Parts: sequence; structure tokens; C-alpha cells
Amino acid sequence: MTDDERFMRMALKEAEQAANDNEIPIGAVIVSNGRVLSRAHNLTETLCDVTAHAEMQAITSAANTLGGKYLQGCTLYVTVEPCPMCAGAIGWAQLSRIVYGCPDAKRGYREYAPKAFHPKATVTEGVLCEECKALMQSFFKKRR
Amino acid sequence: MTDDERFMRMALKEAEQAANDNEIPIGAVIVSNGRVLSRAHNLTETLCDVTAHAEMQAITSAANTLGGKYLQGCTLYVTVEPCPMCAGAIGWAQLSRIVYGCPDAKRGYREYAPKAFHPKATVTEGVLCEECKALMQSFFKKRR
Repeated sequence: MTDDERFMRMALKEAEQAANDNEIPIGAVIVSNGRVLSRAHNLTETLCDVTAHAEMQAITSAANTLGGKYLQGCTLYVTVEPCPMCAGAIGWAQLSRIVYGCPDAKRGYREYAPKAFHPKATVTEGVLCEECKALMQSFFKKRR
Repeated sequence: MTDDERFMRMALKEAEQAANDNEIPIGAVIVSNGRVLSRAHNLTETLCDVTAHAEMQAITSAANTLGGKYLQGCTLYVTVEPCPMCAGAIGWAQLSRIVYGCPDAKRGYREYAPKAFHPKATVTEGVLCEECKALMQSFFKKRR
């Protein structure tokens, strides 16, 4: 297993926990030099707050761990392509690398905010894509 | 004074409070049928959190006041043009109207996330523009 797969699997575990709590199953992990700074999952229903996406919680929590609000040099792993809100937060935090599982054609940043990340940030997509997507699909199938 | 000016003045009071706390002076107010649901200002330094913009705090707080996470029918007043992160949150919250004071050519949503709001949301810009801008300019002048 590569490091990317290992951390994405951790994010998937978070996403599964979200699904168990009836939340849209998205999980995120922030890593600095192989050290996990934060893990989080979507809490929009639990907190009754549209801003409580996995990435937002992970960014707030990682800054708390570090004692500084910028996350240069850190990598964000997230199971689904970030939305424009999260992409904006990722940009403000100056995250250096973003790794996501499956795309979100409907609300993803690539369509709505393609320049929101730091200009030097790199992006890797499709890590454990099928598993990330399957979790989302099974969640929405159950809700119908 | 129009209603828009009255609520923007309230947002300006929040922005002034931010300036007093050495925060970038941006304030926001959310209103539903003339009733103020929340007031907030930028707290990124105080909370050591890049996500703690005035609009984000105001959205979270208004949802708390209402006991529901969607803010349809509500108007957000904010002293400066929202960034892509806040624009994304405004979209998720389904805010119906956005009124902002001065533009932000460098980090504003119009450049970075022009389609982030709800498709039926309306936007009014330039309410008390000069006062909102002057507060920002005097803050950054002092910091130099």
C-alpha cells in the first residue's frame, strides 16, 4: 500500500463513521511529513451547520494541533472532490497538496472555483476512487 | 436611511470591533424579514483559524438561531465582497440575497467563484462602499 492509499484509507474510515451517523459520507485527514495532524468527517446534520464539511473541520483541527493557522507543507486527503467553500478554505490555509478520491461533477471545485487553491499547490485525484464513490452511492441509495 | 444602509451600518459596527481586536475589519449581519438573526466579525487571528471569516460565523450563528441549517429568504449584509470560501457557504445555506459594501478585486468571489451562490440569489453591491473601504484601508495602513 502506498502512503497516499494509507492516508486515504484513514479518510475513508472517517467517511464510514459519517455514514453511521446519517451524515453524507465524506472524510478528511491532514498530514505533515507523515504525521497525522487531524482527522474529521462531515458533521452538517449533527451540528445543523452547512459549513461543517469534513475538510473545514480538518483544517480547523490541524491549525489547532500546530498552533498556527497556515498549513504550508501539509497534504489534505479527502474522499470526495472538495466543493468551492472547502477549496477556498484550502487556499486560505495554503495547503501544499490535495489528494482526493472520487470526483464531484455536480458541486466540485473544478467547475465552481478552479483557481481557489494556492497557485503552487499540487493535486492528485482518484486515490481509492471506487471505494470513495461506492460509499457515497450506497448512502444516497439508502436515503431514496 | 434605507433598510440596507441600516443593516450595513450594523455590519460596519462589527467590522470596527474586529479592527479593535487587530482582526481584518470585516463584519456581517444576517436578516430575515427585518429581524436580525446573527451578527459577526472576522475572528481568524483570535481563533487561529482561516475559516473564521465574518460570513462563516454569521451563517453558523443564524442557523443556530433558526434551528435549521438553510437560510432561504434571508439576506446577508457584509462589509466586503465575499471570498470563494464564504461564497460557497452562502450557496450551501441558500441565502436569497447578498448585500456587500466594497469590492475585493484580489480575493473576491466574482473572480474566483462567480457561480457559487444559489442560482436565484440576488446581489446588491456598493452599500456604504466608501465607509467599508476606508475601514479596510486604514487597517492595512496601520499594519505596514
